Amino acid sequence: MFAGAQVSLYPMTDGFVSVILSSLKALDPWRDQLRIETDDISTLMVGPPEVLFPALRDLFVQAAGTGEHVVLRCTLSRGCPGEPDDPICQTSSLANPDEPIAARQQKALMAIADPVETGERADAQFSLYLMGAGDHMLEIMGCIDFLKQSGTFDRSKNFCTRLTGDAGPVFATLQQAFCQFGAPNGHVTIDLTVSANSPSLR
Amino acid sequence: MFAGAQVSLYPMTDGFVSVILSSLKALDPWRDQLRIETDDISTLMVGPPEVLFPALRDLFVQAAGTGEHVVLRCTLSRGCPGEPDDPICQTSSLANPDEPIAARQQKALMAIADPVETGERADAQFSLYLMGAGDHMLEIMGCIDFLKQSGTFDRSKNFCTRLTGDAGPVFATLQQAFCQFGAPNGHVTIDLTVSANSPSLR
Repeated sequence: MFAGAQVSLYPMTDGFVSVILSSLKALDPWRDQLRIETDDISTLMVGPPEVLFPALRDLFVQAAGTGEHVVLRCTLSRGCPGEPDDPICQTSSLANPDEPIAARQQKALMAIADPVETGERADAQFSLYLMGAGDHMLEIMGCIDFLKQSGTFDRSKNFCTRLTGDAGPVFATLQQAFCQFGAPNGHVTIDLTVSANSPSLR
Repeated sequence: MFAGAQVSLYPMTDGFVSVILSSLKALDPWRDQLRIETDDISTLMVGPPEVLFPALRDLFVQAAGTGEHVVLRCTLSRGCPGEPDDPICQTSSLANPDEPIAARQQKALMAIADPVETGERADAQFSLYLMGAGDHMLEIMGCIDFLKQSGTFDRSKNFCTRLTGDAGPVFATLQQAFCQFGAPNGHVTIDLTVSANSPSLR
């Protein structure tokens, strides 16, 4: 299995370079569990979902803590048939394919029952894509049902769903959406935007 | 059919609000062919691909013309089974499902043979997702073959492909990737990032 994310931080300030560089320090505790490569557009993080999502949360929280309007954007993927197996991605966090969707929804809710609180608000918007075998819309609707019970559901928009709340529960909820829906050996991706300190909300 | 995009501009400058507002003027010539709604995270643009992509190109070119480091990010979608049919999305730009992939690649190449030149460089990175029936990896590999012949192909990365060149051919190539691959009545999405004036490239 191969899993990971292409991640970018967009600080809306003249000092964007220093916000990006100082925020990346939040990844240091995770570096031995991730493979990280950076270019001018994004940073690749390769690793299992249970490492990726907390690492993304810490990156976002560090950036949000600067007080600047900053957006974290990423493309998450697991199980892409075009990518090689990678031992660093080994995970036990994916759903059991024999379980019906209702059981997976319950597991997802239990997993987010006691999330880390970070003190930083996250306004997130994301789309979940499930490719290959199976009824992808059934899984997506099952995921949306879970999101509505997650405690961070804000609203549905065209093409995506909004979550709002402390970054802890928001990223925990995103992790469950990524892990509990779609086949464990399927090709699942998320297109994610998380905004902090937007002046539009003041 | 329903088609559209959730679009955001991220100008990396203290004056981000004025860059966003001045750039949005580039959409004025397209407004009668699009339905546009804005919130604090993104702007929804609903309309057919042959309007969406030139409108996105003009928005990007206007923002890039400020000289600031600015990123346009969008989630494009067509044929999502969860969205209602909308007359504004009526299009004749989608591939004929009876045509083999090689014929669609040729059509895509012919469509980008004489693109508009804008004078602004675009560094783009995107993922194409095809859901529902059919062999989605075959279509994706067919699209990547087309991209390699497009004249703006830069390189493949994990989870995505990079295009570089004048914004005219780059957005024309993206439009063909969106229209010629996957079934016309299928559910096709693109996760797109386009960067201008990055200091990392200086």
